[in-house]
Amino acid sequence: MAGVSGETKDRLILAIAEEIDKQKERIKEVNSRDTDQASKIDLPSPMIKRLRLDDPKIADLTKGLRLLAQLEDPVGKTLLCTQLDDGLELYRVTSPIGVIGAIFESRPDALVQIATLCLKSGNAVILKGGSEAARTNVFLTGLIRRSIKQFTEIPEDIVQLVETRTDFTKLLKLDEYVDLLVPRGSSELVRYIKRHTVIPVLGHAEGICHEYVDADADLDMAAEICYDAKVQYPAVCNAMNTLLVHKDVADVFLSKLGKRYKEAHVQLRGDKKTRKILPYAKEAVERDWSTEHLGLILNIRVVDSLQQAIDHVNQYGSHHTDGIVTENTQNGKKFLREADSAVVIQNASTRFSDGYRFGFGAEVGISTNKIHARGPVGLDGLVTYKYVVVGRGHVVSSYVGSNAKSFSHRLLEKTWNP
Amino acid sequence: MAGVSGETKDRLILAIAEEIDKQKERIKEVNSRDTDQASKIDLPSPMIKRLRLDDPKIADLTKGLRLLAQLEDPVGKTLLCTQLDDGLELYRVTSPIGVIGAIFESRPDALVQIATLCLKSGNAVILKGGSEAARTNVFLTGLIRRSIKQFTEIPEDIVQLVETRTDFTKLLKLDEYVDLLVPRGSSELVRYIKRHTVIPVLGHAEGICHEYVDADADLDMAAEICYDAKVQYPAVCNAMNTLLVHKDVADVFLSKLGKRYKEAHVQLRGDKKTRKILPYAKEAVERDWSTEHLGLILNIRVVDSLQQAIDHVNQYGSHHTDGIVTENTQNGKKFLREADSAVVIQNASTRFSDGYRFGFGAEVGISTNKIHARGPVGLDGLVTYKYVVVGRGHVVSSYVGSNAKSFSHRLLEKTWNP
Repeated sequence: MAGVSGETKDRLILAIAEEIDKQKERIKEVNSRDTDQASKIDLPSPMIKRLRLDDPKIADLTKGLRLLAQLEDPVGKTLLCTQLDDGLELYRVTSPIGVIGAIFESRPDALVQIATLCLKSGNAVILKGGSEAARTNVFLTGLIRRSIKQFTEIPEDIVQLVETRTDFTKLLKLDEYVDLLVPRGSSELVRYIKRHTVIPVLGHAEGICHEYVDADADLDMAAEICYDAKVQYPAVCNAMNTLLVHKDVADVFLSKLGKRYKEAHVQLRGDKKTRKILPYAKEAVERDWSTEHLGLILNIRVVDSLQQAIDHVNQYGSHHTDGIVTENTQNGKKFLREADSAVVIQNASTRFSDGYRFGFGAEVGISTNKIHARGPVGLDGLVTYKYVVVGRGHVVSSYVGSNAKSFSHRLLEKTWNP
Repeated sequence: MAGVSGETKDRLILAIAEEIDKQKERIKEVNSRDTDQASKIDLPSPMIKRLRLDDPKIADLTKGLRLLAQLEDPVGKTLLCTQLDDGLELYRVTSPIGVIGAIFESRPDALVQIATLCLKSGNAVILKGGSEAARTNVFLTGLIRRSIKQFTEIPEDIVQLVETRTDFTKLLKLDEYVDLLVPRGSSELVRYIKRHTVIPVLGHAEGICHEYVDADADLDMAAEICYDAKVQYPAVCNAMNTLLVHKDVADVFLSKLGKRYKEAHVQLRGDKKTRKILPYAKEAVERDWSTEHLGLILNIRVVDSLQQAIDHVNQYGSHHTDGIVTENTQNGKKFLREADSAVVIQNASTRFSDGYRFGFGAEVGISTNKIHARGPVGLDGLVTYKYVVVGRGHVVSSYVGSNAKSFSHRLLEKTWNP
């Protein structure tokens, strides 16, 4: 796969989109057998909704594939070029990681998305979907494998499907062969996987996100941001979980915003000071500060200082996305520097924390890992790099001892042409 | 630590160098108690040699610290700046990882090196050294902690020493607090740690490195490179372990180079075809191809094609450093692209694979991991990045629905000033 050209990979992705369009009726038919079965065994309706592939979802999916094909090839990009000595050049070049294990729940469109992201980045992929989508997953994997066989010289086995729980357990043990696991699903799924494998996992934990309204905030701006961060779409990991307000502005700010939250049916859980201002807020218990609510529930705490806000974020947060609203440059910089989060935001909603909004073209996921890839992850989270050295017979013995040559270590503006 | 300036960190590193110089006699005295004890219990002499801190080693150490202080601050560098919309800007900025666990064997100078690399990159560090160096490690850690206290406002607890086996076992379990483990030592140590922790590990496995001499190689050049890669310093991980030779040039090439190897007391282990050319070579058994020799032993195999050479490297190698000698551009590119190694080299010795030779200024280690950091790792292996978003009251609700604003996603040439 490391030798396959970007053009071939893009042609394949377009061919897969084409096949999906052509076989739309067949896909819906197979999928309806999964959803029928799911209804029979009384799966919760949001799960059935995620499971269902209808016309709009299929249209979104193929549109996404066509956009993916247009993105720049993430493989073979020169990140660094250094002349080590005359005729001896070093390049740091992006390259595929190898074999990705992709694990996802119920949504069968995720299978196609993650498989094509892996193809685009030159990786082989082993897919494991939810058993409730078994028929759809088998059909879609077959469609992708047939496209690989029909339209390229690549062995179709670079895309494989794992179906049983037993095989999934085996997959988690294949650390010699699988280079990275990419779970897409609940944080329970991610936690489970992390506990049961030594393979590196690219996955998010909870999104326990904060907005801190500083003493020097523009309170009108703060109100709009804090309303958006909680109410615009509360079911996602980048929605605000806890609002921190500086004591000097708590009275004015909370009185004003409390009303809007109430109208939007946000359940408030406050500390003692908050409840003096908003008596209708429930009491926040210790556990609330570290619980991801994923709904119209908001914790509120009045803090004495910027430092206390930063300490709260670092102690209770999930290192995902945290914001400050302030007009004070020094306070802003301190927060942005010291809040230990993948994404830190000044004067904008936490909801911007997203691969598409960040302009990455594709989103592999949002990572709360600290190493390899952090925050919203685009295609570059699915590649690594290698060093390429090209010489003209250079040997190390010339660079040691009494007549040792020395290295030039000069940055060059050259790119490696693979 | 994320808020500490580069200037403060460098001043601290220079102060530590100064203290080491001042207390040189005391250090040697404490160290001699460790080496005396080691002699008493009959530790092998190479181990005692690594354990001993003498004048030249201390001079090297403080020289290294002064060079480290001169390197650019790895924290706060802007890697990317995108305008998301008018007044809404995204920066990808390097930041410390957090808490590093550093594990090393016998060499007490490694303690100072790794502690200061962590300080320079803004990380807290928990150190675990070998018990044979216990007294020296306690003394050096105390010296570093006193310097932190005396010369900075940073809490001295950012550098801590773990002494007992029990505490080491506990350290491996602290995945909630420790972000990365950096073992420096044998590949057995690295393997042990990887098996006993879920914390990410930045460490190398074996160096099973190859040189492949292509049919289109300049054979004089190939001989120099293959001699250097094996003989110049055979005890290190980037020395050649296996020589692969194309069948068309095997006769001429091996007859010629075999003599030089013999003179250098290299023990040769060859496949059947090799032994026809070099009858004095021993027979290579299957296990040899995947064994790191770390000495004057060399495997030799005659291959039928470039593809067979690449397949051999990917099957038996350790994805560390592998080279091709060829004048054929296409063959060179194919090897460099398809050999799945951290470092791939054309027409130069594998021995160049090294952080200092690559111009990284400092070497944290050589990684055979595929993610986060691969190959020789400089200070940038000890930092991660965070996303900084600065807006003017931007909310996501303006970018959805019927009158949705759109994103500009324009690359800017701006750097973030922390």
